[in-house]
Amino acid sequence: MSLITLTTDFGEDSPYVAVMKGVILSINPSASIVDLTHQVPPHDVRHGAYFLATAIPYFPPRTVHVAVVDPGVGTERGTIAAEVEGQFIVGPDNGLFSLLFDRHAPTGVWRLTERRCWRPAVSATFHGRDIFAPVGAHLTLDPTPSRCGSAAAGWVRLPGDPWCAALGRLTGSVQFVDRFGNLISNVPGSAIATAPQGIRLGGRDLAGLRWVRTYGAAAPGDLVGLISSDGFVEVAVVNGSAADRFGSAAGDPVEVRC
Amino acid sequence: MSLITLTTDFGEDSPYVAVMKGVILSINPSASIVDLTHQVPPHDVRHGAYFLATAIPYFPPRTVHVAVVDPGVGTERGTIAAEVEGQFIVGPDNGLFSLLFDRHAPTGVWRLTERRCWRPAVSATFHGRDIFAPVGAHLTLDPTPSRCGSAAAGWVRLPGDPWCAALGRLTGSVQFVDRFGNLISNVPGSAIATAPQGIRLGGRDLAGLRWVRTYGAAAPGDLVGLISSDGFVEVAVVNGSAADRFGSAAGDPVEVRC
Amino acid sequence: MSLITLTTDFGEDSPYVAVMKGVILSINPSASIVDLTHQVPPHDVRHGAYFLATAIPYFPPRTVHVAVVDPGVGTERGTIAAEVEGQFIVGPDNGLFSLLFDRHAPTGVWRLTERRCWRPAVSATFHGRDIFAPVGAHLTLDPTPSRCGSAAAGWVRLPGDPWCAALGRLTGSVQFVDRFGNLISNVPGSAIATAPQGIRLGGRDLAGLRWVRTYGAAAPGDLVGLISSDGFVEVAVVNGSAADRFGSAAGDPVEVRC
Repeated sequence: MSLITLTTDFGEDSPYVAVMKGVILSINPSASIVDLTHQVPPHDVRHGAYFLATAIPYFPPRTVHVAVVDPGVGTERGTIAAEVEGQFIVGPDNGLFSLLFDRHAPTGVWRLTERRCWRPAVSATFHGRDIFAPVGAHLTLDPTPSRCGSAAAGWVRLPGDPWCAALGRLTGSVQFVDRFGNLISNVPGSAIATAPQGIRLGGRDLAGLRWVRTYGAAAPGDLVGLISSDGFVEVAVVNGSAADRFGSAAGDPVEVRC
Repeated sequence: MSLITLTTDFGEDSPYVAVMKGVILSINPSASIVDLTHQVPPHDVRHGAYFLATAIPYFPPRTVHVAVVDPGVGTERGTIAAEVEGQFIVGPDNGLFSLLFDRHAPTGVWRLTERRCWRPAVSATFHGRDIFAPVGAHLTLDPTPSRCGSAAAGWVRLPGDPWCAALGRLTGSVQFVDRFGNLISNVPGSAIATAPQGIRLGGRDLAGLRWVRTYGAAAPGDLVGLISSDGFVEVAVVNGSAADRFGSAAGDPVEVRC
Repeated sequence: MSLITLTTDFGEDSPYVAVMKGVILSINPSASIVDLTHQVPPHDVRHGAYFLATAIPYFPPRTVHVAVVDPGVGTERGTIAAEVEGQFIVGPDNGLFSLLFDRHAPTGVWRLTERRCWRPAVSATFHGRDIFAPVGAHLTLDPTPSRCGSAAAGWVRLPGDPWCAALGRLTGSVQFVDRFGNLISNVPGSAIATAPQGIRLGGRDLAGLRWVRTYGAAAPGDLVGLISSDGFVEVAVVNGSAADRFGSAAGDPVEVRC
């Protein structure tokens, strides 16, 4: 069984994802393609990076992950394949795998230099079809990235979006807003020993916020703080949307008082 | 071949679905994962229940269906696995399978009490990842729900949304609005012997409605009534949207005059 | 390995796609179902035709493609199966495969006349479930379309949307708008020998447009013209949306001055 996943910002009304699936299955007809998402907001590399860093660690060894959020396609931005905990990633070298690599150091990194792993003709605007999909498909047949590239010394990192702790305050930002309007900060839950005394969001105090273990511990409409399922300080409205209530988005500052 | 389907209200821009797929494939790398939908409106258990009751009966025996629409995650709401016509369902016990069970009585029902079928650490907010996905994956390897739970006496039913017949009137409500704006009531087509004399929707008469066998029997823009593909009285606008024309939504009262 | 793809305008919140998957897997439990898209705009046969003509050629021989964009379901519109470059297509005969057939002449075309390949009861409103999905599933088991139909002499073509060349002008229209707001015309890039001198869109001159090889060759916000990844003249705004900037949609006239 050859597992290969796809993560893109292509949406599903355009034929780009379907084309990539055709390319993969033409190289390895028995590949099992798993859609992770095609709903990364257009060109939002940071959203894609959070998505991949969260999802990839749950997959089994030898899974190949092809990801394409690639505003710089056709320019001098590099390409990359890497081995991470026995899995493989393939995509543009623009920071898309940077958060994943921060948490799980790659054991090998390669530039995609070998044209024998590409489609014969390479367009300037669709490397997903012409480079990343075929390289991913080849890795499902032979998990030897050195066949498709040359060893690389490093990779592009996303500019930092750090959190810090000082004077009883943990200061960070919203790193992700999910479909339910839950605001997931980049302040790790492990930094909090006891229930916080309060949380500020976008410079304002979240009055009435209760610290809970799960949404259901408060009533519908209540404002709560909790540790998210991936381990960060989260602000939520029970059965509602904290993003809508506060007009909040990724990047907004968050401050946790301990 | 081990078939496992996923139905959630997670959408696709968040990593939650991808994480569940990773958990399943880590337990059974040869599982074949089939997406049913991740577009159930957030927390809309009734929408999910209609979806599952409609779709599941078409699948072959031994298919495992994992469904997560779970506003009460982390509270005292129960968990459930069941065998229905040789297939298996896994999810929260909050009514999500209630309409399916009304139509196809389960031959076994279990509470998910066996932690050996879960992920080692269980969060308070993401049982899809920590309980339902792993239990579903285990069932693809060994279709013996009693390994993962203890027999249960019953399950949570959705509050009724009944239809009734009296004095030549069939009274019910809109139970589902599809992407085309077709309004599917809960009045079964089998209750109608001849073409209805009229239909009321949300308390108003649908003047000009024609009773047809299929959309194409009337002209674009025409208002029609018909039996839906799943056997209920349906109101539609040919090549248009009845939901938009009447501002109608699930729950609106429907009255069919015979 | 039996590959079968699905392309519909059903969206994902309704159970229609899930039902078709159940029907397919009940006939061939080892079929590998690949979603191409379910986001064709409702009833937009031309959008579907462009999608299929673009995507299908990338798939390997013996792939079965079931496509349903079918505003005329239940009327006298025909049904079709065809063999194209060793692959198979199944769906309504309403022009949905017309652009594909223009580029790749089918080597066989059949009407779906054999009820033994259908579900036992056929509804008037859901041939995707009752005819197209089961025929597609049977073709994954036995790639002999003549078992499911009788040879046909022709098929429905979409009304033309031609481009033409005269007096140094290539005149056509926007045939597709992708998720990034890129406007893909039907003027083939192969008709252009050198960089165009200008492009008109919807009757207005695109002042400031630069002709480039890829988006990244200009700055964010710049207006560019280029050859699209599928070989047509394209108008784009770098890291932005040309569709939004010009309020442009499929069908708008395009004129390229050479």
